[in-house]
Amino acid sequence: MTTKGDKLVPRLPRGFRDVFGEDVLARWEMVEKIRSVFERYGFEPLDTPAVEFARVLGKFIQEEDLPEEGIFSFKADQPDWLALRYDLTAPLSRIVAQYRQLPRPFRRYQFGPVWRVEKPGPGRFREFYQFDIDTVGSASMAADAEICCALCDALEALGLEVGSFVVRVNNRRILNGVLEAAGVDSRKDEGLTALRVMRCIDKLNRLGMEGVRALLAEGRLDQSGDFTEGAGLSQDELSVVSDYLQAAGQSRRAVCEALLSVVSSSQEGRRGIDELVQIDEFLSAAGYDEQRVVFDPTIVRGLTYYTGPVFEASLRVERAKGQFMDSVAGGGRYDDLVERFTGEKVPATGAAIGVDRLLEALKVLQIVKRSVRAPVLVTQMVPERAIEYQAMTFELRRAGVAAELYLGEGGIRKQLKYADERGIPVAVIAGPDEFASNSVSIKDLALGKRLAGVVSDRAEWLKREQTQVSVAREKLVEKVKELLARESAVE
Amino acid sequence: MTTKGDKLVPRLPRGFRDVFGEDVLARWEMVEKIRSVFERYGFEPLDTPAVEFARVLGKFIQEEDLPEEGIFSFKADQPDWLALRYDLTAPLSRIVAQYRQLPRPFRRYQFGPVWRVEKPGPGRFREFYQFDIDTVGSASMAADAEICCALCDALEALGLEVGSFVVRVNNRRILNGVLEAAGVDSRKDEGLTALRVMRCIDKLNRLGMEGVRALLAEGRLDQSGDFTEGAGLSQDELSVVSDYLQAAGQSRRAVCEALLSVVSSSQEGRRGIDELVQIDEFLSAAGYDEQRVVFDPTIVRGLTYYTGPVFEASLRVERAKGQFMDSVAGGGRYDDLVERFTGEKVPATGAAIGVDRLLEALKVLQIVKRSVRAPVLVTQMVPERAIEYQAMTFELRRAGVAAELYLGEGGIRKQLKYADERGIPVAVIAGPDEFASNSVSIKDLALGKRLAGVVSDRAEWLKREQTQVSVAREKLVEKVKELLARESAVE
Repeated sequence: MTTKGDKLVPRLPRGFRDVFGEDVLARWEMVEKIRSVFERYGFEPLDTPAVEFARVLGKFIQEEDLPEEGIFSFKADQPDWLALRYDLTAPLSRIVAQYRQLPRPFRRYQFGPVWRVEKPGPGRFREFYQFDIDTVGSASMAADAEICCALCDALEALGLEVGSFVVRVNNRRILNGVLEAAGVDSRKDEGLTALRVMRCIDKLNRLGMEGVRALLAEGRLDQSGDFTEGAGLSQDELSVVSDYLQAAGQSRRAVCEALLSVVSSSQEGRRGIDELVQIDEFLSAAGYDEQRVVFDPTIVRGLTYYTGPVFEASLRVERAKGQFMDSVAGGGRYDDLVERFTGEKVPATGAAIGVDRLLEALKVLQIVKRSVRAPVLVTQMVPERAIEYQAMTFELRRAGVAAELYLGEGGIRKQLKYADERGIPVAVIAGPDEFASNSVSIKDLALGKRLAGVVSDRAEWLKREQTQVSVAREKLVEKVKELLARESAVE
Repeated sequence: MTTKGDKLVPRLPRGFRDVFGEDVLARWEMVEKIRSVFERYGFEPLDTPAVEFARVLGKFIQEEDLPEEGIFSFKADQPDWLALRYDLTAPLSRIVAQYRQLPRPFRRYQFGPVWRVEKPGPGRFREFYQFDIDTVGSASMAADAEICCALCDALEALGLEVGSFVVRVNNRRILNGVLEAAGVDSRKDEGLTALRVMRCIDKLNRLGMEGVRALLAEGRLDQSGDFTEGAGLSQDELSVVSDYLQAAGQSRRAVCEALLSVVSSSQEGRRGIDELVQIDEFLSAAGYDEQRVVFDPTIVRGLTYYTGPVFEASLRVERAKGQFMDSVAGGGRYDDLVERFTGEKVPATGAAIGVDRLLEALKVLQIVKRSVRAPVLVTQMVPERAIEYQAMTFELRRAGVAAELYLGEGGIRKQLKYADERGIPVAVIAGPDEFASNSVSIKDLALGKRLAGVVSDRAEWLKREQTQVSVAREKLVEKVKELLARESAVE
């Protein structure tokens, strides 16, 4: 409820959040690093609005596609329903259909928030940022391989070492081939079964192979006693799917060979493997070995619109060796998306980086460094000297030093408390004595904070000696810069 | 309509737009420049979601407040109405009320899109970007003065010279004082009349003084023959308001003196002038003279929530000397906004830069330079050599050169047409001859474009000589860098 009595309650709707200070900067810096990688790949920037016609987005959101998900939709002063975009791929397909004069292939990057009506949970929000790259108008597997390379480069640019992340690749055609080889394609409910099988496989990480096998067949009783109905595969069908899921090898090429033995009877399956072989060649020639990109038959990606290769990037978590966290990026080939507008078949492939999720992961891995960004604080002791305090502040700013004039109420004690709360590194203090002697006092608050834990006499002495110095007024900028340099050296 | 027959029409709702390539970069660069100014002032970053409870935003949107405007509002899976934020000030007031532990003053900058259901028009969109700074928790006029200084610095950082922009300042208290001096405060409909008077004054730029005078009294017949009802001021009341609007002076201080002669009988008016005098002192001491910031009694700002000083920044347009374009930034003091949540009175002041409008203006003034950003294109002549073309592309990327491998269909002619459409500066070409001699050809497309207009024989000769060179394969990166450097030198 937004009111309590007759007072308005200051709060956010479920699933939304505010981001403060350093977290905003961390996201900004991350976006800049990703952007410079994607620009080196020659992708060009695009920005589309948050609001689109629901129908233009809506074709993707079929009931069976996103069962527990939805979009924020609304009407304004026009008859058609509007909606907040739920990804950046649907708007891209509109762009390609709408602006026929765009050069093809159209290769763009786009960064921005997307919105979904999902059940919120830890780390799951209804507004989150994505950073997408896509190549529209190319059927070449070189385009798919390149997306994987760009994902690797972006993760490395963010400070992740080789081996601490992996891009896993599969091909929907192979999955289709497996279902064909298993005989599922002769069923009346082929489409639905295929979707169910995909959904089961998607749960492998959480349920393990036995859980997934149960779910592929009759169903599964979970620990709470709830029964989940299965996809209804027969023993023969299940055995083919099981073989497929366990296809493995020491190299990408070996995985392809293992997969071939499962789907050799299906033309679609063989084509899928052939595409993976091409991707392997492109990856290897470009220098992206199995440490970075692997082939993995268990990768399916949730969305139904993928038609070929699919990708997923995850980070390796230290605490559980060899285990990968939830995906931080994903994508695939979607050759049919533009068609629904124009009837023209336009091949396309791409991926989205989950910026917020990746940022959270980098924090857990302590790869995102907290950077001191708080400004220098010019305190105000003598109210009549406001103009002079302001002049000091502007002197610092003009010298390129971020500086803030204390503009609140209260004496020096309250002002230093404020400086402490804000993580201010250096405070400038001038009282009657300083004005009389044309000097200023400069307090190294960062040093003070570090020394606060030290209790020996020598430390006490150091503290008194070093945390506050008095200099001639005209030395203000010079001395502040010196202290700031000392602080950055300590970090 | 989003469908035509059974085909989906790829289009955007009214008032929304897509932004491509260089325009995205121009906005990005502009935001970075503004951000670095605001960081030097010690404002800290904040990000709030696009979606808020409508009631949390809604108090601002009273019928009389934004007559032709509205917000995009909707419901999801909760009973309360949600809405897209229509500015960044309402979310800030929620933040301050919600996070009581935040240090005060809370000084933040925030950048992002806002949404309004307005009548779209040229340059008027329903989604546009704002960049705000605010100081919450300070009643000091130094805070208001600082906002004006930061606006000036931001505009200068964007390349605007002193004299090509102006920040105009007024004070709502003076306006209230004028209405008091005019006797409007004794009317029963005081509030409504005050609002109408403000609305009239806001139209001064468009209607001129005579038009506004008519509108302040009985009303006004416009050129199309439509009659607009007036604010209903009597001749005596009108005379006081007219005197006020024409108060002028050679300096900020002189404007204050001229205003004092109009509102000397009103305590509120005198307080307003006293605040302007303080602002003048702060501005002068910080070095912001009348070339940058002036006092102007005709500035009112549309919103009702302002309680003190109001600011407006505009750009001077060359073609009409002395004329200022529509405002590119505006703001003011709003001491009552947080109160509606907590009952606690929290003084606050700030301003918003209209990023998109400012960008448009900078384009008109040709201050935004088009920067060559297109990558080098590696063409594909021999399909069997795909791996080698890809290797060239990655070699260039690893050397820090933005490069793209052509991934579409078609021969070299089509590929060069694509390069032309994308504004590609340099193309790499390797056919059977090049592969046989272990070399590559490099085409300077930018030079070719410049020479295309030149028709003399010498130019033809130059063209042949310089636009395409052949180098040893291992010289690829070196030669491409050389050509790109030559191109940047030409710009």
